[in-house]
Amino acid sequence: MASLMEDEVFRSFAKYAAIVTVKLLLMGPLTAYYRITRKVLKKQLVRTNEDVERARRCHQNDLESIVPFVLVGLLYALTGPDPAWALLHFRVFVCSRLVHTVAYVMALPQPSRGLSWAVGLMTTLSMAHTVIHRTTTLHLL
Amino acid sequence: MASLMEDEVFRSFAKYAAIVTVKLLLMGPLTAYYRITRKVLKKQLVRTNEDVERARRCHQNDLESIVPFVLVGLLYALTGPDPAWALLHFRVFVCSRLVHTVAYVMALPQPSRGLSWAVGLMTTLSMAHTVIHRTTTLHLL
Amino acid sequence: MASLMEDEVFRSFAKYAAIVTVKLLLMGPLTAYYRITRKVLKKQLVRTNEDVERARRCHQNDLESIVPFVLVGLLYALTGPDPAWALLHFRVFVCSRLVHTVAYVMALPQPSRGLSWAVGLMTTLSMAHTVIHRTTTLHLL
Repeated sequence: MASLMEDEVFRSFAKYAAIVTVKLLLMGPLTAYYRITRKVLKKQLVRTNEDVERARRCHQNDLESIVPFVLVGLLYALTGPDPAWALLHFRVFVCSRLVHTVAYVMALPQPSRGLSWAVGLMTTLSMAHTVIHRTTTLHLL
Repeated sequence: MASLMEDEVFRSFAKYAAIVTVKLLLMGPLTAYYRITRKVLKKQLVRTNEDVERARRCHQNDLESIVPFVLVGLLYALTGPDPAWALLHFRVFVCSRLVHTVAYVMALPQPSRGLSWAVGLMTTLSMAHTVIHRTTTLHLL
Repeated sequence: MASLMEDEVFRSFAKYAAIVTVKLLLMGPLTAYYRITRKVLKKQLVRTNEDVERARRCHQNDLESIVPFVLVGLLYALTGPDPAWALLHFRVFVCSRLVHTVAYVMALPQPSRGLSWAVGLMTTLSMAHTVIHRTTTLHLL
């Protein structure tokens, strides 16, 4: 069972995937915190507090970005990529999402948020490209 | 190929992950059912029916909770955890989400919903902690 | 590490999972494109442009459908299914989501969208059924 975890690339992937998923999970408590401190109750259906809404939208963007990263990254780690190149992908993605969260929640001026989102997207698309290329090439062998 | 499924922990994970993902998937038809029976059409952009909105919000909460559980749980099952301890994590999570769904859709009084959400979150964070700890420790070996 | 990718079913799964996840990821840029060309700014909190809203709702539906497919499909590929039967599942799902996206974004008349959504849901539920059945049966051995 530990065989996958004996692989350097898979172990790195597991670590960074866990870290970035914890970040995603913490958006829930953060939104709850803003909701309580800004005294905005959900049942009022009044969505006017900017801090609450920013945390909610950041959470949604995390779902749209971090979940695909973990799904594609898992498959990518199994294609036997170059360890240094794989590690670069994982680290760039995790950094891009930390910057994105700070830029979103603290409402930093653009293009900080847009740029960090685009870097994360590119990283995942690059890994997806490798997965599709490798699995198609192996088919032809 | 069947080698991963020969592992007791991974097999348990696969079963509970499939069960809880089916639960998530069934929120779609449930929302559709409420939409039809409560005669609320989406294109009207009038979101006033409480039953429909509760099912929608529960679906969204499932995406934010169940998807991270399956992602982190998969990596956790590969770190070779104690089978009894792992099984406890999987079962507590699945139970917490079933309680959460009933509490949300039936509009049970709080803290039933908040508590079941928190228990599920703690379970996933506990597994994420193990993944990060194990993968970091193995790095140092 | 490459051992999983040596398996025909797993390799097919990896390819189709990557393709359909890329489709999900491209909904982000598509929404941004509509937002810019339809001159709808997010901070105005005015959500009236139909093209932008259709792309957003399609993106949300992708999260609710494609993510569970990849999660369940990964476990399904590990249960050692019949290759031809597995490939049929993967291809039907990917086709159903491509049709769904076109039907949603182009606002094609129903039941094109509802039907393609239902076909995708059935495919994932069928795979989930196999996972639950196989893991439960193996338990009893």
